[in-house]
Amino acid sequence: MTMLAPIEYADASPEVRAVFDDIKARRGVPDVNNFWKYLAHDPATLRRTWDSLKEVMAPGALDALTKELIYVAVSVTNGCGYCIASHTAAARKSGMSDAMLGELLAVVAMANATNRLANGYRVPIDPQFGGPG
Amino acid sequence: MTMLAPIEYADASPEVRAVFDDIKARRGVPDVNNFWKYLAHDPATLRRTWDSLKEVMAPGALDALTKELIYVAVSVTNGCGYCIASHTAAARKSGMSDAMLGELLAVVAMANATNRLANGYRVPIDPQFGGPG
Amino acid sequence: MTMLAPIEYADASPEVRAVFDDIKARRGVPDVNNFWKYLAHDPATLRRTWDSLKEVMAPGALDALTKELIYVAVSVTNGCGYCIASHTAAARKSGMSDAMLGELLAVVAMANATNRLANGYRVPIDPQFGGPG
Amino acid sequence: MTMLAPIEYADASPEVRAVFDDIKARRGVPDVNNFWKYLAHDPATLRRTWDSLKEVMAPGALDALTKELIYVAVSVTNGCGYCIASHTAAARKSGMSDAMLGELLAVVAMANATNRLANGYRVPIDPQFGGPG
Amino acid sequence: MTMLAPIEYADASPEVRAVFDDIKARRGVPDVNNFWKYLAHDPATLRRTWDSLKEVMAPGALDALTKELIYVAVSVTNGCGYCIASHTAAARKSGMSDAMLGELLAVVAMANATNRLANGYRVPIDPQFGGPG
Amino acid sequence: MTMLAPIEYADASPEVRAVFDDIKARRGVPDVNNFWKYLAHDPATLRRTWDSLKEVMAPGALDALTKELIYVAVSVTNGCGYCIASHTAAARKSGMSDAMLGELLAVVAMANATNRLANGYRVPIDPQFGGPG
Repeated sequence: MTMLAPIEYADASPEVRAVFDDIKARRGVPDVNNFWKYLAHDPATLRRTWDSLKEVMAPGALDALTKELIYVAVSVTNGCGYCIASHTAAARKSGMSDAMLGELLAVVAMANATNRLANGYRVPIDPQFGGPG
Repeated sequence: MTMLAPIEYADASPEVRAVFDDIKARRGVPDVNNFWKYLAHDPATLRRTWDSLKEVMAPGALDALTKELIYVAVSVTNGCGYCIASHTAAARKSGMSDAMLGELLAVVAMANATNRLANGYRVPIDPQFGGPG
Repeated sequence: MTMLAPIEYADASPEVRAVFDDIKARRGVPDVNNFWKYLAHDPATLRRTWDSLKEVMAPGALDALTKELIYVAVSVTNGCGYCIASHTAAARKSGMSDAMLGELLAVVAMANATNRLANGYRVPIDPQFGGPG
Repeated sequence: MTMLAPIEYADASPEVRAVFDDIKARRGVPDVNNFWKYLAHDPATLRRTWDSLKEVMAPGALDALTKELIYVAVSVTNGCGYCIASHTAAARKSGMSDAMLGELLAVVAMANATNRLANGYRVPIDPQFGGPG
Repeated sequence: MTMLAPIEYADASPEVRAVFDDIKARRGVPDVNNFWKYLAHDPATLRRTWDSLKEVMAPGALDALTKELIYVAVSVTNGCGYCIASHTAAARKSGMSDAMLGELLAVVAMANATNRLANGYRVPIDPQFGGPG
Repeated sequence: MTMLAPIEYADASPEVRAVFDDIKARRGVPDVNNFWKYLAHDPATLRRTWDSLKEVMAPGALDALTKELIYVAVSVTNGCGYCIASHTAAARKSGMSDAMLGELLAVVAMANATNRLANGYRVPIDPQFGGPG
C-alpha cells in the first residue's frame, strides 16, 4: 500500500494531539480537516506549518479576509484542488460573499492572462519600475 | 531581428492612439507603460485587454487595493518579472504600504508551501468542502 | 467519444508490445501501468519516453533513490496527480521510508515558499552567484 | 565559481562535436545556440535531447510551423525567457508572421485565464467530456 | 455549503440567458457546458469571457484548429483537468485526429522538458535572439 | 521609488541583526545573501523563514545534499532565477559535482515532460497506486 492514511485523534501521539487541540480550540471546530490529519505523519512539519499559519494569517497590516482572498488566488493559480476547496470555505467564514469570489476569480484570470502577454511580448521592465533606463 | 520593438504614440495608428489616450486620461500619466506599447502590435488584443482590465479592476464588491493585492499575488506565484514590477507599483499607488507588501508575500509563500503539502500527501477533499462523504 | 482508452497488451501492435515486454522484464511486473497503456496511442513517443526514462533514471552520479525523490519533488510542485501517485510508489520501491517522504515534502514546501519570496521581493542575484557586481 | 560556462566547439569532446555538427548541418548555421553549448556539460543529455527534438519536431500529422507555435505557447506559459526568445525565432523561420504571433499570444492569454476560472469555480467535467454522468 | 452549483437556463437571469442563447446558437448545441453554468454566478465575467473567446478564437492569421491546439497545449501545461477535457473535445470538433493529439502532446512534453534544462543550466539568451552581445 | 533596497547589517534593527548573526555563524560567512537582506523588510518573516529553513534543511532521514538537490529541482521547475543561482551554489557546497547537476537536470526535465504526458492523455491513477479499481 503506497498511500498514507489520515491519522485520527484517537491514534495520534501526544505531540500531534497538542497541535490538533490547538487547531480545534482556535477554530472552534470539533475535528481538524484532512490536511492536518495527513501532515500528522510528520509531526515536526505539522507543528511548524500550524505555527507559521497562525502567525502569517493573523490580522496585521492586512485583515484576515484579505489574507484569505490572497490565499485562494494563489491556490487557484496553482490548480491545487484541496487548497481551493478548503480556503474558499475559510474565506467565506471570514466574510467572502459570492460577489467577492466572482470578482476575485475575474482578477485572478486577468492576471494570469496578462502575465503571459508580458512574457510572450518579452516586455522590458520600465525604468520607473526598476528596469534599465 | 526577431524581437518586437515598442510602438510609441507618434508611430501608432489611430486605433492604437485611442486606447493610449484613454489609458493616459484615466491614469493621469503622460505616457503609457511598455506593456501597452508592445500589445500595440496587436490592436484588437490591446483594446480587449484594456477594456477588460478597466472592467475587472474597477471597485465593486472588492475595493481597488484588494484587487491589486490579488494581482500581485498571482504575478509573484507565476514569477512574471514585468508583472511583479508594474503591479507592485500599481498596488502602492492604491495605498499598499511596505508592511502590507511584506504580509502579502508571507501569505503567498505560505499558500505556495501548503499547496505542495496538500498535493504531496494526496489529501482528499473533506466532505464539508465538497469531497466524497 | 473524446477520451482515449488504454491499449491493452492483447490489442497492441508488435511495436508497442516490444516496449511493453521490455518494461515488464526490467521491472519484473506482470503488466505495465496505465501511463504506458495511454502512451501506446503514439508508439514513437512510447518508445522514446521509455528509452529516455531508462537512460535518465539509471544509477550514475546520483543513485536510483535520489533520482526518484527528485522526480516526486517535481511532480508535487506541478500538482500532477498521476505522477505523484506512481512515482511515490516507485520511490518506495527504491527504499523511500515514510520519514524520508515527510522530509522530502517539507523541503518541497519550503522551496516553493522561498521561490515566491525571492520573486516577490525582486531579490537581485548576488555577485558570487553570477549576478552583476 | 558556481556557474557553468558554455562549451565551444574548439573545446568540445568528439562525442559533443558530433552532435554540434549534426545541429549545424541540419539547420544550416555556422554555430549552435547557447542552449546546446550548456547541455554539452552532460553529453548523454545533449545527444538524447537533440535526437528527441529532431524526432518530435519533424513534420508529421502536424506541420513544422504548428509544432513551433505549440512550443512557444508552452514556453510563454512557463515564463522561460530563453525558450521564448529562441523558439519565437524558430517559429519565425518556419513562417510565423507578426499577426500570427499576436493571435498566438492572445490565445495563450485566454487559455491561462479560463484555466483559472475553471479551477476557481471548481467546475466539474461534463459527462460528454468524460466526467461523471 | 461552500460550493457553487451550476446555474441552469431555467433559473438564469435575462442577462445570463442572452449569453447562453448566443453560445448555443453559435455552437449549434442544445445546452451550454458546465463552465458557462458556473461563470453565470458572475454575469459580467460570463459576458466578457464569452465575448473575448469569440474574438480570440475566430479564424484569422491562425485557423480555428491551430488555435484549439494551442489552447490544449496551455491547458495540459497548467494541468487544468476541466480545460484539457473540454478543449480536447473542441479541438477534435475542429479536426484534430488521434495522431495530431499524440504529436501535440509530444511537443508539449518536449517543451516542458527543455524549458527546465534552459532554466537549470542558466543559459543566457544568444545575441541574435535579443540577448547581450 | 517602488523597489525595496537591501537592508545592510549596519542599518538593521537588533531583531534583524540577531537573525543575520545566526546565519553568518551557522554558515561561517562574513555576510548574508541578498535574500535575507530583502526579507529584513519584514522581520517576522525573516525570522520565521530562517528558523524553518534551519529545521527543514537539517540532516535527518535525508542527508543535507539530497535536500539541496530537491531544493534545486523545485526551483528549476518554477523557473525562479534567484533560487536556482543560490541553491545551485548551496548544493555544490554540500558536495554536488557537475555530473550530479547534469543528472539532476535530466531527471527534472524528464519529470516535467512526463507530467504533461500524464495530464494530456488524462491517464487515470492505477488501482495499485490508490486509483479506483
